[in-house]
Amino acid sequence: MTKLTGYNLIGLEGSARGEQTFLAINPSTLIPLDTTFYEATFPEIDRAIVKAEEAFLVYKSIHPEARARFLETIAEEILELDDTLIRRCMDETALPEARLIGERMRTVNQLRLFASVVRDGSWVDARIDTATPDRRPFPKPDIRQMQIPLGPVGIFGASNFPLAFSVAGGDTSSAFAAGCTVVFKAHPLHPGTSELVGKAIQEAIRKTDLPDGIFSLIHGPSEKVGMTIVEHHKIAAIGFTGSFNGGKAIFDAANKRDIPIPVFAEMGSINPVFILPGALKERNKAIAKELVGSFTLGVGQFCTNPGLVVTLKSSESDQFYQALKNETAEVGSGTMLSERIRMNYRKGVKKLKESKGIKVLASSNTPEKENNVKSRVFSTDADFFLRNKDLAEEVFGPSTLIVAAQSKEEMINVAKNLEGHLTATIQGTEQDLAGYTDLIQILERKVGRLIFNGFPTGVEVCHSMVHGGPFPATTASQSTSVGTAAIRRFSRPVCYQDFPQAALPDQLKNENSLNIWRLVNGALTKERIG
Amino acid sequence: MTKLTGYNLIGLEGSARGEQTFLAINPSTLIPLDTTFYEATFPEIDRAIVKAEEAFLVYKSIHPEARARFLETIAEEILELDDTLIRRCMDETALPEARLIGERMRTVNQLRLFASVVRDGSWVDARIDTATPDRRPFPKPDIRQMQIPLGPVGIFGASNFPLAFSVAGGDTSSAFAAGCTVVFKAHPLHPGTSELVGKAIQEAIRKTDLPDGIFSLIHGPSEKVGMTIVEHHKIAAIGFTGSFNGGKAIFDAANKRDIPIPVFAEMGSINPVFILPGALKERNKAIAKELVGSFTLGVGQFCTNPGLVVTLKSSESDQFYQALKNETAEVGSGTMLSERIRMNYRKGVKKLKESKGIKVLASSNTPEKENNVKSRVFSTDADFFLRNKDLAEEVFGPSTLIVAAQSKEEMINVAKNLEGHLTATIQGTEQDLAGYTDLIQILERKVGRLIFNGFPTGVEVCHSMVHGGPFPATTASQSTSVGTAAIRRFSRPVCYQDFPQAALPDQLKNENSLNIWRLVNGALTKERIG
Repeated sequence: MTKLTGYNLIGLEGSARGEQTFLAINPSTLIPLDTTFYEATFPEIDRAIVKAEEAFLVYKSIHPEARARFLETIAEEILELDDTLIRRCMDETALPEARLIGERMRTVNQLRLFASVVRDGSWVDARIDTATPDRRPFPKPDIRQMQIPLGPVGIFGASNFPLAFSVAGGDTSSAFAAGCTVVFKAHPLHPGTSELVGKAIQEAIRKTDLPDGIFSLIHGPSEKVGMTIVEHHKIAAIGFTGSFNGGKAIFDAANKRDIPIPVFAEMGSINPVFILPGALKERNKAIAKELVGSFTLGVGQFCTNPGLVVTLKSSESDQFYQALKNETAEVGSGTMLSERIRMNYRKGVKKLKESKGIKVLASSNTPEKENNVKSRVFSTDADFFLRNKDLAEEVFGPSTLIVAAQSKEEMINVAKNLEGHLTATIQGTEQDLAGYTDLIQILERKVGRLIFNGFPTGVEVCHSMVHGGPFPATTASQSTSVGTAAIRRFSRPVCYQDFPQAALPDQLKNENSLNIWRLVNGALTKERIG
Repeated sequence: MTKLTGYNLIGLEGSARGEQTFLAINPSTLIPLDTTFYEATFPEIDRAIVKAEEAFLVYKSIHPEARARFLETIAEEILELDDTLIRRCMDETALPEARLIGERMRTVNQLRLFASVVRDGSWVDARIDTATPDRRPFPKPDIRQMQIPLGPVGIFGASNFPLAFSVAGGDTSSAFAAGCTVVFKAHPLHPGTSELVGKAIQEAIRKTDLPDGIFSLIHGPSEKVGMTIVEHHKIAAIGFTGSFNGGKAIFDAANKRDIPIPVFAEMGSINPVFILPGALKERNKAIAKELVGSFTLGVGQFCTNPGLVVTLKSSESDQFYQALKNETAEVGSGTMLSERIRMNYRKGVKKLKESKGIKVLASSNTPEKENNVKSRVFSTDADFFLRNKDLAEEVFGPSTLIVAAQSKEEMINVAKNLEGHLTATIQGTEQDLAGYTDLIQILERKVGRLIFNGFPTGVEVCHSMVHGGPFPATTASQSTSVGTAAIRRFSRPVCYQDFPQAALPDQLKNENSLNIWRLVNGALTKERIG
């Protein structure tokens, strides 16, 4: 199987000109893994971006079928890596095999889903208004609009999904689907996994005869490596999944450029869960079990981890708390993705523990080893929560905070005071819902996804998914980073006025040879024109 | 007819608490017009925005039919103002009657077009993926996505289109169509026109029984009035048409907020025109005539004014230049919108005149009176143009700069060095086009609209229009401010997971009672589900 080189992948070449190097560390054993990785130098990054620009001029206009085949070939090449990929990824992340096999399938299916979107072709939102030459006082011109790709984009991988939100994850596949080229900044916690997937993409480029430079992989734990990409004048947009501090710094830098560019940064969320009275009455044990399953999933390292649970004080509260205690006690301790992430989690837990208004409601029985962490449930009342804004900040890891409201009004007040989040969940009976339409209305304005009687972990990759939400969950509330609508982040509209047929893109020619849906004089149709 | 009050319109009330006042000035006579206008105070602005937020909670969810009727009623009320509106607008802007009657018709048609979009309803981009409860390893949930309105938006009127890009212009009508409420900052050059149209909107609100606060009109020449709107925490987005400095200042302020918000600022453009050899050979006189008609239209005060014309030196150049001289000579002098705009135009002209590498090629024969300006054509060669970047900056007014390239390569080089603009135009034969596909490819990345054998002035309001383009033409290249796609600026996607039918918006219920197009499990259909 492929042997790791530790090189940056600049188009189809490997490159290791830098003097800064780093190693991946196994979070379970704390032992460094083999292969020295080379941080990219400025000339290497520049070369990758210049290549991406040159390749863009070709890639943006290739036939949709060729673009779809490319995405599918990446999927095949990732599967080809087989156990090599899973083993390396386990070593770098301490995530269990079954989870990574599932994540790989999600990544592969995502590439295939985007291939189907490209092949269908209707995503370009073609709009045609035909001419009326004899209109008075002025003739009406022929105007035809479609989405075109933005250019080379810079994408930053996330630590917590080393496959699905990394090198060939949602951002990369939607950018490729849109017709953009990609300069990918690998996450330093899984550089080997990144190299393996990067080489799968290189192989797909070779097999489908696409130009060198469509894809580059850049290593570098230093902030300046990422910022060099963000500030490069040939980069047209940024995709990012990670921390608020990281995303906000990129957003600010992108806005300060001579030519500001859009930044699609997904920066996390506490994903509030509201448990309504009927649900607590009917199934408080089941909810407790599912909640614990959700906030401890993957050692609590999901963007959609439910970190805040709002309940109404009632005669069922005690049973619910007791069920939470029992369920949490049974959760084993887990290894987090890195020492730094573990330390941040411990810091967050310590802060909550030391807070006067917060109680430790439950914690797992398994003792905490040096590199392992326990799951925990904290509790407080709504009044204290509302007076301490920092309690609404994300503690990345397997903990959640239960907030008990005295009344419906207090519960509504908690909702009203929330900032932007990725998701909000309502646990309730249908009768509950009818009495809480105001709560739904409030939450709609705070999040990208509303869940009823489920839990937010598990983000379905489909046409209708919204993985996004108002700031500070993202820097771009009008977009989603998961699901097929994510493709629109990397395109913009252009229109052609009175262009001859020969000079128009295929999507806008009368004959509609690609058989796409088009809005022709205001009516959606697949018919040819004339 | 309605008498002007000079008051701010805070929802359905008039309010004049401020101590700062101002007058409109007739640009032709330089005499102040009647009615003292009151700059809004902070409490007045805050009250307007709080009302807009309260009204939003109702307006966002009203039936599409009611929203469409509201837009149509605004159109009717504007027509009701009849001559009162046209007279006041002529007095405030010095624009001729026929132009304003045409602009009013465009404004009214725009409102009606958005009403048709709201009534059709498919703009919400509904996407439904139905559940597969027995999928392994995890059940597939039911997920349903649609666009929902952002909230109260702040909109800034432009000086140069006192009707079509002002109080009830494209930004306001697309925001209302999306379901947003509007706090409108009137342009201080036409406050009376603004009040009249504002009252027409108030009347439409009364007649259609919509809540107070859907619309407010704020006066104030001071920058702080506008910035108070931009920085208010309840404002969810900004629409702006105006200068680069104004738009960029708003963009920066919006990004520095605790919660940054999107800014859709259209900041102007020099709208380059490329005249290819075949066209120059076949019809240089006709092109000269149309070009002069375009850059002098409305005294050159259009965002789409063609301020740069690139030609290839050829045996036809002299004839073309002579034709430009003849045509320009016959253009009468014109009154610009304000003294400041006129002074800026004169400053721009003076700078070009004093530049060593620039010649005055043509100017109108009519002498320039104090408050009038002449049209002018300047010329230079591509080499000088490329070495002086500031020549590519917009001179707002009736002038254009002809750049003569020695070769195709030099012409391409000029194109490559352009920044973002709203439009680019190619004058050519079909044979020219075939030889200049590289030019089209370059221009596609620089602009929102490409025009063949026409001129950029005259922006058709239709489904396919793109009035936008890369920075610095706008701060939001992924959007358009004219045409029905403009509605998407004021919405964002939200999805509902496993929601009971009763709790879903009508657009996402199984029955599809609104009969809209929906993407159901990846296929576009109007069918009901189940």
